[in-house]
Amino acid sequence: MDYKKYFSADTESFMRSPVREIFRKVDLSQIYSFAGGYPSAETFPLETIKRLSAVVLEKYGAKALQYGATQGVPELREVISKRYGVPVDNIQITTSSQQGIDVCTRVLVDPGDVVLTTNPTYLGALQSFKSYRAEVVGIENEKQIADLLAAGSKIKFFYAIPDFQNPSGQTMTLEQRVELVALARKYDFLIVEDSPYRELRYEGAPVQTIYSLAPERTLHLGSFSKIMAPGFRLGWIIGAPELLDMIYVCKQALDLCPPIMDQYMASEFMGGGELDKNLAKTIELYRGKRDHLLSLLEKYMPDGVTWTHPEGGLFLFLTLPEGYDTVALYDRALAAGVAYVAGSFFYVDGSHRNTMRLNFSFLDTSRMEPGIKLLASLL
Amino acid sequence: MDYKKYFSADTESFMRSPVREIFRKVDLSQIYSFAGGYPSAETFPLETIKRLSAVVLEKYGAKALQYGATQGVPELREVISKRYGVPVDNIQITTSSQQGIDVCTRVLVDPGDVVLTTNPTYLGALQSFKSYRAEVVGIENEKQIADLLAAGSKIKFFYAIPDFQNPSGQTMTLEQRVELVALARKYDFLIVEDSPYRELRYEGAPVQTIYSLAPERTLHLGSFSKIMAPGFRLGWIIGAPELLDMIYVCKQALDLCPPIMDQYMASEFMGGGELDKNLAKTIELYRGKRDHLLSLLEKYMPDGVTWTHPEGGLFLFLTLPEGYDTVALYDRALAAGVAYVAGSFFYVDGSHRNTMRLNFSFLDTSRMEPGIKLLASLL
Repeated sequence: MDYKKYFSADTESFMRSPVREIFRKVDLSQIYSFAGGYPSAETFPLETIKRLSAVVLEKYGAKALQYGATQGVPELREVISKRYGVPVDNIQITTSSQQGIDVCTRVLVDPGDVVLTTNPTYLGALQSFKSYRAEVVGIENEKQIADLLAAGSKIKFFYAIPDFQNPSGQTMTLEQRVELVALARKYDFLIVEDSPYRELRYEGAPVQTIYSLAPERTLHLGSFSKIMAPGFRLGWIIGAPELLDMIYVCKQALDLCPPIMDQYMASEFMGGGELDKNLAKTIELYRGKRDHLLSLLEKYMPDGVTWTHPEGGLFLFLTLPEGYDTVALYDRALAAGVAYVAGSFFYVDGSHRNTMRLNFSFLDTSRMEPGIKLLASLL
Repeated sequence: MDYKKYFSADTESFMRSPVREIFRKVDLSQIYSFAGGYPSAETFPLETIKRLSAVVLEKYGAKALQYGATQGVPELREVISKRYGVPVDNIQITTSSQQGIDVCTRVLVDPGDVVLTTNPTYLGALQSFKSYRAEVVGIENEKQIADLLAAGSKIKFFYAIPDFQNPSGQTMTLEQRVELVALARKYDFLIVEDSPYRELRYEGAPVQTIYSLAPERTLHLGSFSKIMAPGFRLGWIIGAPELLDMIYVCKQALDLCPPIMDQYMASEFMGGGELDKNLAKTIELYRGKRDHLLSLLEKYMPDGVTWTHPEGGLFLFLTLPEGYDTVALYDRALAAGVAYVAGSFFYVDGSHRNTMRLNFSFLDTSRMEPGIKLLASLL
């Protein structure tokens, strides 16, 4: 049977995640993986979660297993409200921050509308934008924006990951954030601030969120994946109640409400101080891993290879001399036993085939050296 | 700030769930609620889940907290495969069966495409169909289908809840299912078979699923909400691998993967025999509630009021004499302390304002009599 004729027009713009396709085929424990954005299993508060699951079922009983409010359970919204200093009414819980990206795109974007991004940017966001047939434009300068508007394009929002960006590892300075907000006000578009790594800072001082600079036109996305555990699939959106109300109505049809017991566990974890304790350990671990990876790159990478020095997060970005092709190299690398993600997957136009993203959170510290040695030998 | 201009065209077709709006405003424990589709908290296997959460964290460790496959964890797909006799490759886990409806609609429907349904039908499905600007048509006879096609409409699928339908409580006979499949083949559309209540049968013999009659063109949706607990937000889709593959790609962008620890708990619950034990108790409880509600309606409802006699599920449907308006009555009923859902919300065109849906799973058996007495006194 030929199913093609049944599919919606959107499906023609669906992108398969090359990262997820890699993970479908290989056993991560058998290779040196610098691919993916998996947190280290060492950071998972296994014993705490074991205890909290019993606590939550004791404390909330059947309520933890019943349907709940589409906005999320009040307890979790309150804990987030306290931690980040925003009113409860400005908080919507999402079933993963990937859903946060998706639902924002769904309520804002019509086919052909423009979404602005930095270039490169997060692959999962590109997947979502393209799935709604947005025109995604990587922005280098103001003139591009003016030209788009002059040509009649409708710019809906700028998508930014200001802290320890995926994939580059770079952080926007306060000046850059202020400038972005000024552009958003001048040209009248919204900002989606994707902030899953913000709390994972290993050096330097935090920079104000974009949301704090322009709460009226920013949707700020948070995630429990990197500060608790990704298996819970919980995130949140902070934004103007008028925007959240539309997201709320959309979410009713998407999945009614986020998982309830998981939300109560997250609220106990964040509200009870366990999160901060675990976060301190996580930061310590990842700082060491980042430093180790940086020293290994210094030691093994051939001349002409450069890389970013992230102040936090999970990734750094490698640039090889012109002419190298990390997409073409990939199968050989995987066969040899080392995985990365080709940098071009993060570029809107698939360019920059001489770049690659390296993750330093997942692989055991002791396995990094043989992994990088192997990777360097392939270059 | 006026946010309207930022919203996508789809948002103009978003529907707020009147059921969810009711629940936003009232404390369910303070009224006699025959509204909603909430399972009884008595059916939740609280102690088992407490035990299974420890078992799962012990057995799977960090794996239960890490990211997982977009299709769902293999263990859960295998357990479903065994229980329902379908290959693992034909199973996709969803983050709630509401997501199942939504993702099927997203990959199949363009604005203006036709979705056929019985009339009345599930409100959450109407919300999803309309949110993608489908033309939803309640079908009474074959001629309507032929006319739609003659007029150039593109019919994508028929949405059916064949077992103990929401809201009517009615079950399609085998003949009706065979006829639907014949129509689908003749006029070349797919069938989305939504089956959250199938295992809750209180009398009579099960009827074959539509999927078993036409596996090549049916997407069958299952749910853990009524056989385990809705708080887990887990469901599944059974269908042809070619259709599931597109759903898989879509789900990558929607939320990457379903909640992992919850999936392991569901697989232990279903695979280990706990589900069947709990289901037997649930069926016993709900059969008693259904019988009690039927006897109360017999006892208290004025002449001219009729209702369905469901063989399973959570709902029955009441028809009042012409001229009654359950939408208009609603605020008065709520103020008096009794809640239902107006039947017209389930009709594609909002007609049949003299009907109402009554749920019999949620309210304690002991509170049903004063509730129905009160409701009858308002009619």
